Amino acid sequence: MDADVDERSETQREIMEATYCALRTRGYADLTIQAIADEFAKSKSLLYYHYDTKDDLLVDFLEYGLDRFAAEDAVDPTDSPTAQLETFLDDFLPASLDDDQRALQVALFELRSQAPMNEAYREQFSRADRIIHETLADILERGIEQGEFRTVDINYMTELLHSIIDGGMTRHLTTADETTMTARRTLDTYIESNLLTDE
Amino acid sequence: MDADVDERSETQREIMEATYCALRTRGYADLTIQAIADEFAKSKSLLYYHYDTKDDLLVDFLEYGLDRFAAEDAVDPTDSPTAQLETFLDDFLPASLDDDQRALQVALFELRSQAPMNEAYREQFSRADRIIHETLADILERGIEQGEFRTVDINYMTELLHSIIDGGMTRHLTTADETTMTARRTLDTYIESNLLTDE
Repeated sequence: MDADVDERSETQREIMEATYCALRTRGYADLTIQAIADEFAKSKSLLYYHYDTKDDLLVDFLEYGLDRFAAEDAVDPTDSPTAQLETFLDDFLPASLDDDQRALQVALFELRSQAPMNEAYREQFSRADRIIHETLADILERGIEQGEFRTVDINYMTELLHSIIDGGMTRHLTTADETTMTARRTLDTYIESNLLTDE
Repeated sequence: MDADVDERSETQREIMEATYCALRTRGYADLTIQAIADEFAKSKSLLYYHYDTKDDLLVDFLEYGLDRFAAEDAVDPTDSPTAQLETFLDDFLPASLDDDQRALQVALFELRSQAPMNEAYREQFSRADRIIHETLADILERGIEQGEFRTVDINYMTELLHSIIDGGMTRHLTTADETTMTARRTLDTYIESNLLTDE
């Protein structure tokens, strides 16, 4: 990797951090590209050089954020499928959220609420949805092969788990379900009763 | 009911309709109380007399909208539990959305994205969440009593169905799942395999 690429990606990382901080402080509705520039340590003109509008910037933020949060990296390939599934769930529907995890989830949720009106956002969330689907399906496939999981319809089970994860997080963030996550307990019970073999 | 109350509730209904139209056209981020006043046929001062800020108004809009959409009214008490469950799901996770249903869901979803930061919104969504929970639990209880449903843990099953409904709608609105709703098919399969008795 040459120095130019290194520097560009370092600048990009810093822009993304600034965006995250501004989004966390102000929320989407009050976010301006100026507010992001205010959080950015380097020259403001560098930021304006890369991005014309807050939406351009936020699409890149989503791509970057959803990649960092990417499901592929969430699991250790040397783990057993059962352990992989647990790690995956701890990432996407943890039993409780610390302040940073909550702030990230809230920021992503607010951006997600714009996806119905914004095609570029919708593409990013579709991409993330596909990555989650494929990762879960892979874990299930391996678990069935290795006898840790029952022989279930992989696509159906993946869809079901994925909707429970998204619905559980939505309900957690937007209702008075404030401490440990009710949905995670429900999901764990479901997995024990319907997916794990009795070994 | 006296004429004053009638007129007040008629005015409220018109304010709520104006809010819905403004929200639908502009989205939450660009919504102003002026934009709502522009959609309101009666005197603007009447609207400003009732509400100081857009957030005051939107809390009432949520209360009104979630009441109209209330789960209690979604089911016919003379129906069988199986038919009640289907009507309920057709309301909360229909197999497809027409333009008006989609616009309402998108507006509610955008307001919901503000709930983590806004306690008054969060209270409204908590209330709606409880109503949905209680309605579903009642249907399940009757269905078990009448032998249409298997003897399941009602609270667990209610939580599971509720998260699938919310997650399914979120995924539908924010990804490229644009025609018939994948999550509804998954949910129907789940209910057939895990809830309905074989009669």
